This record gives sequence, structure tokens and C-alpha cells, in this order.
Amino acid sequence: MYDVLIVGGGPAGCSAALTLKLRGKSVLMAFSDGGALAKAARIDNYPGMPRISGPEMLSAMRNQCLEAGAEIKETLVQRILPMGKSFTAMLGNEICECKSVLIATGAGRVALLQGEEALVGMGVSYCATCDGMFYKGRSIAVIGAWEEAVEEANFLAGIAGSVTYFSEKKHDLSRLSEKIAVSEKKPLSLASENGQILLDGEAFDGVFILRSAMALSQLMPELEREDGRILSHDGFFTSVKNVFVAGDAQGAPYQIAKAVGDGNMAALAIAKALDNDAKE
Amino acid sequence: MYDVLIVGGGPAGCSAALTLKLRGKSVLMAFSDGGALAKAARIDNYPGMPRISGPEMLSAMRNQCLEAGAEIKETLVQRILPMGKSFTAMLGNEICECKSVLIATGAGRVALLQGEEALVGMGVSYCATCDGMFYKGRSIAVIGAWEEAVEEANFLAGIAGSVTYFSEKKHDLSRLSEKIAVSEKKPLSLASENGQILLDGEAFDGVFILRSAMALSQLMPELEREDGRILSHDGFFTSVKNVFVAGDAQGAPYQIAKAVGDGNMAALAIAKALDNDAKE
Repeated sequence: MYDVLIVGGGPAGCSAALTLKLRGKSVLMAFSDGGALAKAARIDNYPGMPRISGPEMLSAMRNQCLEAGAEIKETLVQRILPMGKSFTAMLGNEICECKSVLIATGAGRVALLQGEEALVGMGVSYCATCDGMFYKGRSIAVIGAWEEAVEEANFLAGIAGSVTYFSEKKHDLSRLSEKIAVSEKKPLSLASENGQILLDGEAFDGVFILRSAMALSQLMPELEREDGRILSHDGFFTSVKNVFVAGDAQGAPYQIAKAVGDGNMAALAIAKALDNDAKE
Repeated sequence: MYDVLIVGGGPAGCSAALTLKLRGKSVLMAFSDGGALAKAARIDNYPGMPRISGPEMLSAMRNQCLEAGAEIKETLVQRILPMGKSFTAMLGNEICECKSVLIATGAGRVALLQGEEALVGMGVSYCATCDGMFYKGRSIAVIGAWEEAVEEANFLAGIAGSVTYFSEKKHDLSRLSEKIAVSEKKPLSLASENGQILLDGEAFDGVFILRSAMALSQLMPELEREDGRILSHDGFFTSVKNVFVAGDAQGAPYQIAKAVGDGNMAALAIAKALDNDAKE
């Protein structure tokens, strides 16, 4: 049971992790990729790190978090479930429990397929480990958007009757199992018919969508959102008790220094909330 | 005429300077000492700069501002006067004009002498260069609180009839002119009597108080304050148009990451205000 699960490994998440460690809290920081910052060639207005690239900055900040005693998992957080006074999170093959959550996933928005949102949990899944066994011997479509989806698809091929792989974005398929059929079509829409999922009209028993980031609506549907950003009050509090938000996930302006300040202040709010809960 | 005068050279001021330069604004950053951060042996929760000392951090951030094209003056800003649509600031021997001001002076509070505030401009001055000539041939007390006050006192000794030096805080007096009498008493209170200033009962024509920082009440009396911090609305706006505040000058929590985020966001607000003013 961690005190805090930080979803995201960018400036807001790292800043929060450092301050939470100073406050004596146990921290797990989990993320799947570096978002927009991992692609930035040069940042000029973050104080103290002149002429630095995004990957260099991320690496420096994450190493500092490790040295401070935070745990880091480079794994996509797929779902966070409120469980009374704590939370259970699905991280790839693992389950993690935590007392509080900081959403610091950045501004990256996930473009959903047409019809996708309505079918989540009704034949559309984001977690091969969680839901794969429900499809033993049945027909599955995998919609992959990055290299790691290939591993998950291979795992599903060992369970399902048949797996067809669709690429949402171009990525390396060389390690895909020979048991998997590859479709050349780019997936566009999902619908439901007679207990099956129609992927652009083709019927499957289940569809697994494996992206490098989760849409906020899938990560934690309970959170109040607007235009893809998480609504907050008093700076860092979301609509769910003990779930906080910092950085670009709150919306514009998208600035590293602001995200770092945000993470720092959110950490103070989280530490205070944890201390208050401990007194009750 | 600078677009922005930043008063203070700490994390908030440096963060603002970097973003203002990216926005194409001319920036003068002025400060007299490093405040609390200059004395910090080690900071552990500023992302990207692990195990760094306060002086190292300040030096890195200020060099980055210089490289970005900000001007830096290591001079105490003594007074900022609103002049219609712009501001005039007194920096030691110099006058500087600017369109907007960012107060980023940190949390340092200046303890005033008893009776001091009421006598400002009525025999009590903070600027030897500005007001020295008014005391030609007359008796002056200098209340010095740091090494640089010694130079100012020597300058006054060339003008005044007599100068008596009081130390508010201990500092090196070895370079003090022989023409200056040194009092061993620690100054406590000021009062006014028959057109003279009584310093703990001893009468002088004028009293110069030379500290390394200005009380906010003397720097810009027009700013609304409370308990030594500047009151702001919507994050960074003060009670005076085109005067902004960021970082510890706004009050607790006193955190570097927060100050850096503050300076970044204040810079965006300042750039927007300048652009709007330019359109009018």
C-alpha cells in the first residue's frame, strides 16, 4: 500500500514525488511514455537547466526521484478504482494499492474511435492481463498503437481462438506472433451487434485497444472532466476525495515551470490530506 | 525604458525573466542579495538539480537569464514610483524607467525601527545619492546594516557637516572614513522634534537607513499588503496596474518549485498586459 500513486513521469509528477519523499511519504510513480516533452529538442525557459533537451530533462528529473526514494514503474496505468478509503490501480500485469492518487499525465489527449467510449467493459477492453481470460477460445481484435501492444497481442494469442491485429498508428510488428492475422485497415469505428463488437463492420467477440496512454475517461471515469482536462478546485483537488491533479492535465498554459510548481504545491496538499486521514 | 523591471533575483524572478525573454520583452532584473536561498546548504526538491546548494542554484539561474538576454544589476531597488503609464525606479545611483514591474523579492521581512515608517521623507531617507545634497553642512546619522552602507556613508561624509554611524547589524567597518564618528549603540527608535530627528533621543538633521533590502512599505507604499506579504488577485496582479508579484513575496508556502511556477505564470500575465497596452 503506497501513500501516493503518481500517474505520469513528467515535470509535475517528478516535482510532486520529490516533495512527497521529503515529507516522508511512500511514492510509486508510473508512466508509459514521455509525452510531448520526450520529443522536445530544446527547452529555454526552465530555470537552472539551460539549453536542455526534453529527454535529458526527463532523465535528470526521474533519476533524482529514484535517488530520493520514489519507486518508478515504466508501465501504463490502465485503470484506477476507488475502493472505499483506498484505490486499486491496474498497471500492466500488476495491481497496486494506494491511499491517494496524483494525476500528472500531461496534456496528451487520446483520440478515441467512434463508438469506443460507450462499449468499454462491454466487449472493449484496455488490459490484456485483466480481461484476456474472458476470451478463451473466442475471436479477438487487437488495436495496437505502439510497440508494446505487440507483446500484449502475443499474450492474447495464447488464450483466444483467433487474434486479428489492427494498427492505429504505425509501429514495428516484426515481433508479432505468427498466429496473429494482420489487417491492413486503419480502425475507425466500433459498434455492438448480437453480443459481438463490430470493428468497421467486422464482427469479433472482443476488442482490446492497446495505446501508450489511457484516455482520462477510461483511467478513472469518476473524475469530472471538461474538454479533455480534469476539473479541479482550490488548485489541485479533483471531484474524487484523495485524487489530485497537477500540471498540463489541468489544461493550459502548458509550461514546464508551471507544472513543476503545480506538482510541488499538490504534494503539500496531498501530504496534508494523508496526515489528516491518519489522525481520523 | 524596459518592458519589465524584475525586483529580485531568486527563482521566481529568474523564471519570469526567462519566459519574458522568450516572449521578446526587454527585462532588467535588479537585486541586492540572495535572501534565504543564498544561505541554503542544500536543496532536495527542485526537479532537475539534485543535491545543489542555494548559491550554486542562484548562480546557474542568473547566468541562464544573462544568456537569454536579460540585463542584471546587483543593486538594491530603493523606490518605485508610478508615473502615469510607466514607472521610475531608484537603483542606487541610477534611475530606471519601465512599463511594468514584477515584485519577486522573496519572503525576507525588514524589521523597521520604532517610529521609522511615519518619518520617511521627513528627515528619514533610504537613498544617499537621492537625498544627500539636502544635508549639505548639516548633521547626519547613518544606520548601516551591511558592508555597502559604508560606501554610502563615506559619500555622505563628503557632503554633510558631521556623520555618525550606527550599526543595525554587525558588519565590517574597516573602510569607514575617518571623518565619521562611530556609535557603539544599537539604534532602536526614531522620533521627530523641532524639525530634527531624534535617534534614541540624540538629535540629527537627517537619518539615512541603509539596509540590504527595502521594506515593501518603502519600496512601493501604493501596494496593498498584509502581514508583510503583497496581496494579489488572480494569481499575480497587485493593487497597482502593471505591477505584478510572484514567489515568496506573496506569502507561504515558501518553496522554490512553487516560486519558479509562479514566475513563469506571472511572466505570461505580464507579456499579455504589455501586448494589450501596446494595442491601446
